[in-house]
Amino acid sequence: MRDVSIIAIGQIAVGEHWEKSIRHLAADAILAALKETNPARIDAMYIGNMMSGEATGQEHLGALIADFVGLRGVEAVKIEAACGSGAAAVRMGYMAVASGLSDFVIAGGVEKMTDAPGEVITAALAMAADADYETSQGLSFVSINALLMRRYMYEFGVRHEDFAGFTVNAHKNAMGNPHAMFPYPVTAAKFVEARMIADPINLLDSSPIGDGAAALILCPTELARQFTDKPIRIMASAIATDSVALHDRRDPLTLNAAFLSAQRAYSLAGITAEDLDLFEAHDAFTIMAALELEACGFAARGQGVRLAQEGQIGLDGRIPISTMGGLKGRGHPVGATGVYQIVEVVQQLRGEAGANQIKDCHIGMAQNIGGSGATVITHIMERSD
Amino acid sequence: MRDVSIIAIGQIAVGEHWEKSIRHLAADAILAALKETNPARIDAMYIGNMMSGEATGQEHLGALIADFVGLRGVEAVKIEAACGSGAAAVRMGYMAVASGLSDFVIAGGVEKMTDAPGEVITAALAMAADADYETSQGLSFVSINALLMRRYMYEFGVRHEDFAGFTVNAHKNAMGNPHAMFPYPVTAAKFVEARMIADPINLLDSSPIGDGAAALILCPTELARQFTDKPIRIMASAIATDSVALHDRRDPLTLNAAFLSAQRAYSLAGITAEDLDLFEAHDAFTIMAALELEACGFAARGQGVRLAQEGQIGLDGRIPISTMGGLKGRGHPVGATGVYQIVEVVQQLRGEAGANQIKDCHIGMAQNIGGSGATVITHIMERSD
Repeated sequence: MRDVSIIAIGQIAVGEHWEKSIRHLAADAILAALKETNPARIDAMYIGNMMSGEATGQEHLGALIADFVGLRGVEAVKIEAACGSGAAAVRMGYMAVASGLSDFVIAGGVEKMTDAPGEVITAALAMAADADYETSQGLSFVSINALLMRRYMYEFGVRHEDFAGFTVNAHKNAMGNPHAMFPYPVTAAKFVEARMIADPINLLDSSPIGDGAAALILCPTELARQFTDKPIRIMASAIATDSVALHDRRDPLTLNAAFLSAQRAYSLAGITAEDLDLFEAHDAFTIMAALELEACGFAARGQGVRLAQEGQIGLDGRIPISTMGGLKGRGHPVGATGVYQIVEVVQQLRGEAGANQIKDCHIGMAQNIGGSGATVITHIMERSD
Repeated sequence: MRDVSIIAIGQIAVGEHWEKSIRHLAADAILAALKETNPARIDAMYIGNMMSGEATGQEHLGALIADFVGLRGVEAVKIEAACGSGAAAVRMGYMAVASGLSDFVIAGGVEKMTDAPGEVITAALAMAADADYETSQGLSFVSINALLMRRYMYEFGVRHEDFAGFTVNAHKNAMGNPHAMFPYPVTAAKFVEARMIADPINLLDSSPIGDGAAALILCPTELARQFTDKPIRIMASAIATDSVALHDRRDPLTLNAAFLSAQRAYSLAGITAEDLDLFEAHDAFTIMAALELEACGFAARGQGVRLAQEGQIGLDGRIPISTMGGLKGRGHPVGATGVYQIVEVVQQLRGEAGANQIKDCHIGMAQNIGGSGATVITHIMERSD
């Protein structure tokens, strides 16, 4: 099996791009990556996307985007794993290079969510949940997370305001990210006052939908230095799954797929959670950030929220998360999010994170979650010095 | 890179399964494969599906199906490449085993199309085409193929009745397949009389939509004989792409991605078209079968239709196609079709094709097409004696 490295990244600002079609969004990110370094040959392209059919009336994104960026003919498919689609596409790219079947691979993610009516997007997002047993009962994707958050608060005696630290941190970091959708500060007081979405989740617990695209170029590590001075090596790539429906889990407050996925990744990388210099977490809702920190070994059960309260998730904290704004501040174009997370880890490891740069940054992790924890994809990356 | 073999297959009859949800359909096929041989551990599952979101309100099929068949925890994602989704999922499974990242992999395809209203399915199928430049002009997926067929007839002086042989052959073979949707004979006279769908394509030029699912279990060739006496070795797996929109191609009557994909596969397998004992073609429409035979090297440009006229595609012909009924006779549950094709090649190579068995069958090819030829996936398999 071949070792794999990332030799280029590309991303566009997350936002409302009404003037561009989904193929333009993807192309802008992919061409930005190819502008960083162009290996003269691309063998395959894997595109993460959740809802292009529902939101834009377009499936078949692999061939569509490959052609539009001038790569007509290459292997190209779309990968879907709800909000985990982006990192799942990176996983496929990793497999393609690791196997030896492809040398130069583009892994990208794209989502266009702001052209369609809100109810279409709400319905499409709910397709990440169980259509027969959750959605059919009237649950939306937000309300499923609200059930989780309510249970967490009840079980561990946590108050809603205790989650403020996640949102304050994410927005603070978004201010240093030119690609962030909401680069504005949020105070703990504002967090508490925000309007309710699905009790107890309010507007500032929730990540915003948006249009966005991000891309990576992967190649065998042994070739990487021909194309960049700062290759980033993928130490581990792992996917794990859980039941899609919340009620089918033994303990809804344990994200077991996040646990399994992180454990596999730690084992493959030969590290522990202590060795990580940053963690791009999937903070679609504040409750998800808390549960994920617990599942990945940064906090004991019921204690994830304390990391935010104690300031341990800041850029100079014990485990910096959402270092470029996270899903909350950068925005959450669902099928692209997992690729943005990896792009941001690469920026940090390269030392190109600007005002948000973490000092002595050697190893970073990105974890992308589909649904309420049913598909979890973890990548661990390191600087190659 | 590791050599990969197929150690088990499963499929359900294509039809109108109103009593079963999409997860039940997939599970029936996967459990049938696991019943053939259960390697005690499954590492990953790749599910081909095009339109579960549009047709059933359910995305996130990877985790959903993995959990439902008792494999909660394993790596699982959905792969989409329009009607090519099924074989694209097999390609991902092939990569996973070839890379060494996984030893035992399920590759499946599933589609549930008969519960939703016809106009929903027509719209969903059209998402295989270019939403901005084809569908927005009022083209449906059938009418795009009608444009191709009309042009073919004009360019090469072919009459509509000349295509009858494809349909007669497919339905004749479907009669020997217990999983076929339409195991009824069709005569050339009936073919000509069938009602028009999109001139010149009539009902009997067209494959039927349906509910269906099929699955394979893959593992390293070196382990395959521990699990089956009849392992089928994958000699080649290849994907190629073309423009999604027909008008963007230099020559609409050349399926360039089918050509590229077949050439890559022949080269990887070290064979030529002459060496194939059967070819499961993507006969979604009779015109597609003709164009595909040309692209894959069985006939010169404009001559593909002659193979059907001359009886060369029958079970004892020069190149048997649609040996178990093809898309026309077995049915075309779009995201599952590519897996059915491979399952059928395996049946032939194992000598388990019953009344439809091809004599001295050693090497078979399956080619799955997404859209009007924008994504083409080719697999070549051989019997391991």
